[in-house]
Amino acid sequence: MSDINISKLDAASADFDRKLQKLLAWNEADDRHIQQTVLDIIADVRTKGDKAVIDYTNRFDQRHISAAGELELPGEILKSAWESLPAEQAQALQIAAKRIRAYAERQKIESWQYTEVDGTLLGQKITPLDRAGLYVPGGKAAYPSSVLMNAVPAKVAGVGELIMVVPAPKGETNQLVLAAAYLAGVDRAFAVGGAQAIAALAYGTETIPAVAKIVGPGNIYVATAKKFVFGRVGIDMIAGPSEILIICDGGTNADWIAMDLFSQAEHDENAQAILISQDESFLKAVEQSIHKLLPQMERARIISASLSARGALIKVNNLNEAVDIANIIAPEHLELSVEDPEILGKNIRHAGAIFMGRYTAEVIGDYCAGPNHVLPTSGTARFSSPLGVYDFQKRSSLINCSQTGAETLGKTASLLARGESLTAHARSAEYRLKA
Amino acid sequence: MSDINISKLDAASADFDRKLQKLLAWNEADDRHIQQTVLDIIADVRTKGDKAVIDYTNRFDQRHISAAGELELPGEILKSAWESLPAEQAQALQIAAKRIRAYAERQKIESWQYTEVDGTLLGQKITPLDRAGLYVPGGKAAYPSSVLMNAVPAKVAGVGELIMVVPAPKGETNQLVLAAAYLAGVDRAFAVGGAQAIAALAYGTETIPAVAKIVGPGNIYVATAKKFVFGRVGIDMIAGPSEILIICDGGTNADWIAMDLFSQAEHDENAQAILISQDESFLKAVEQSIHKLLPQMERARIISASLSARGALIKVNNLNEAVDIANIIAPEHLELSVEDPEILGKNIRHAGAIFMGRYTAEVIGDYCAGPNHVLPTSGTARFSSPLGVYDFQKRSSLINCSQTGAETLGKTASLLARGESLTAHARSAEYRLKA
Repeated sequence: MSDINISKLDAASADFDRKLQKLLAWNEADDRHIQQTVLDIIADVRTKGDKAVIDYTNRFDQRHISAAGELELPGEILKSAWESLPAEQAQALQIAAKRIRAYAERQKIESWQYTEVDGTLLGQKITPLDRAGLYVPGGKAAYPSSVLMNAVPAKVAGVGELIMVVPAPKGETNQLVLAAAYLAGVDRAFAVGGAQAIAALAYGTETIPAVAKIVGPGNIYVATAKKFVFGRVGIDMIAGPSEILIICDGGTNADWIAMDLFSQAEHDENAQAILISQDESFLKAVEQSIHKLLPQMERARIISASLSARGALIKVNNLNEAVDIANIIAPEHLELSVEDPEILGKNIRHAGAIFMGRYTAEVIGDYCAGPNHVLPTSGTARFSSPLGVYDFQKRSSLINCSQTGAETLGKTASLLARGESLTAHARSAEYRLKA
Repeated sequence: MSDINISKLDAASADFDRKLQKLLAWNEADDRHIQQTVLDIIADVRTKGDKAVIDYTNRFDQRHISAAGELELPGEILKSAWESLPAEQAQALQIAAKRIRAYAERQKIESWQYTEVDGTLLGQKITPLDRAGLYVPGGKAAYPSSVLMNAVPAKVAGVGELIMVVPAPKGETNQLVLAAAYLAGVDRAFAVGGAQAIAALAYGTETIPAVAKIVGPGNIYVATAKKFVFGRVGIDMIAGPSEILIICDGGTNADWIAMDLFSQAEHDENAQAILISQDESFLKAVEQSIHKLLPQMERARIISASLSARGALIKVNNLNEAVDIANIIAPEHLELSVEDPEILGKNIRHAGAIFMGRYTAEVIGDYCAGPNHVLPTSGTARFSSPLGVYDFQKRSSLINCSQTGAETLGKTASLLARGESLTAHARSAEYRLKA
């Protein structure tokens, strides 16, 4: 018997809603000390530029950099990382990149315009960001898949220059990460991490160019820095712990479902893996699989901690009830491991990504299905979307009034402006009316 | 001679870049006292619900509410505000709403999916927000046009329920605002404002339902509250002062251009109105128009303060140089008052909205052209977009692997997962491979 103690909830019980809310509750520590440290780092990088970046990098990453030029990872280093990859791994990354690109191409938003009968033109012009920054964590959580997922959509959008920052603790870099950066077409890379990297990307230094938007995951210092520089630059989401919700009708192999839960739980102790079924005996079978399989797992300690603290097996009366709960949770990953996932999926309103059918393991989406693995967490799928090409594009409205259009629209604008007591507005329109 | 003292810059001068940056600099006061006040209000509303909302509303808006039911503005009040509008104004609002709706319909993003040869399905499912909140300022800055601009895209997106909050100082409501809310299809309205309204929308109270996203302009307390609740709910942008950049080749009536600058400057003392031209005599003519027209303006004091503090007339060598400066400024509103605005517009990369041609006064866009008047300010057009239907829609990725797809994709996923030492990920994919 393993030491997992996973919560069991029944949607029919009187206090289910309260228990569900308690299970889902997640509050990122609001640490004043971290906030102050990050504010100091940002202020230093703004005023001292490269010098501050070098100082912090030497201190936090145990480096011995003396010249700013040493901050950059030259293109040849990325290229040689790619070229020295084992063929099998290179091929897998290529397959993944190709599929991510193919899906991203479909997301691209295009400019449009139309002309009204009086000759007035209205439209929406799409432009890519001039320059984007991609933060990649160093050390143990260095994921080449994340490099592809963040970089490929930026390149598909047509971002002018894509800058990657990745810390190199003690000077060590992750060859897979550098190889993925090469494959994805990262334009420049710097061996800098932490809040100092975010500050450098937001404000620019003599060596590191300022970007328009910063994407990519990082630790609490990185996330805090991203929040603080938001407004100066765009940022992607601030991610909470990763989560999966699996709805299963009981017809999938219990071992498969247990392993799907593990694949989420192995990320870290705060990850959340929840299974819902109307089939009580299936829930029991999955629990048995969990106990059976756990001892074989390399990351058993993390899986056990995560499932015990934040995992759950939820019994419902029927699958419609499961859908209702899914819409309350608004999960990052939703697996519909059921006979007819298309029908069940129709009523799902909130989820980052929906994995449909018994053969669609969530892990396929993590690496190579094509859709992005950067997804809204902690219920934010109620109002936000996966990272995509559209995050690297922006819109400008176009208005070109014909003389007739200025006449008819001008009268309406003038009337409404006077209703708001904005008389310069009104006169600006009135000047364009025929005498 | 009026007391306007507008800056004159020459792009050919050595210190132009520095002067331009100084002109554009805008820092919202980072007031610790306001932040603490707002945090207290949010905490109170979270824990005490309606009671806190009533207390703050009575205190800040000089109301005498005793029961929570009094917070709501019943639908009949909105309807009767609409019905008692003068016909001319009702018609103008209807024209505006119809055009905003027509443009918004084109922005709507649609779901798509495709099936690969092995039967694997990939797609992107679009859903509207369940419920959105619209903040509308009370008192002097009560703009019915803003109600339309925020509410119509939400309704076009298919938002389930649209909740408006608007303060009613001393119990007074703005009839035009209520009429616009009725016209736009606002579902429920509450006479609550300030940080307490934002907190109520974010967390919900017994009376005011929690929403998924909050949009709309407000004062510094409202903006600060929106920043603090971001993450719990979505928010639109945090707007800085409004700005216009006009590029004119000298062929437009100088009075028209002066009035266009005024129409921006009359918003408030911090608004920014800048004119660029290659024609020095035209810049002088506009300056003369400014002095000539100012005394006739109802809001002369605000216009004068704004133009003196933050306005500028910029001389360039040619219009291409003007485009380069526009791309640095990334203006909220850009007027291309030139002979061939289509050609000049092609090289504009960053702008909230582009008004093309001599007949396209920016004010047309403020009220009734169709495109939204909620636009990115303070250079954020480098990375963000006008408010639109897409702000009330969100995406979910769809993945449905065929058994063959699970086989080929599973091998790639397994290999990449093992490269990242995530072995539960790998096994979850491997289970779906044929034995």
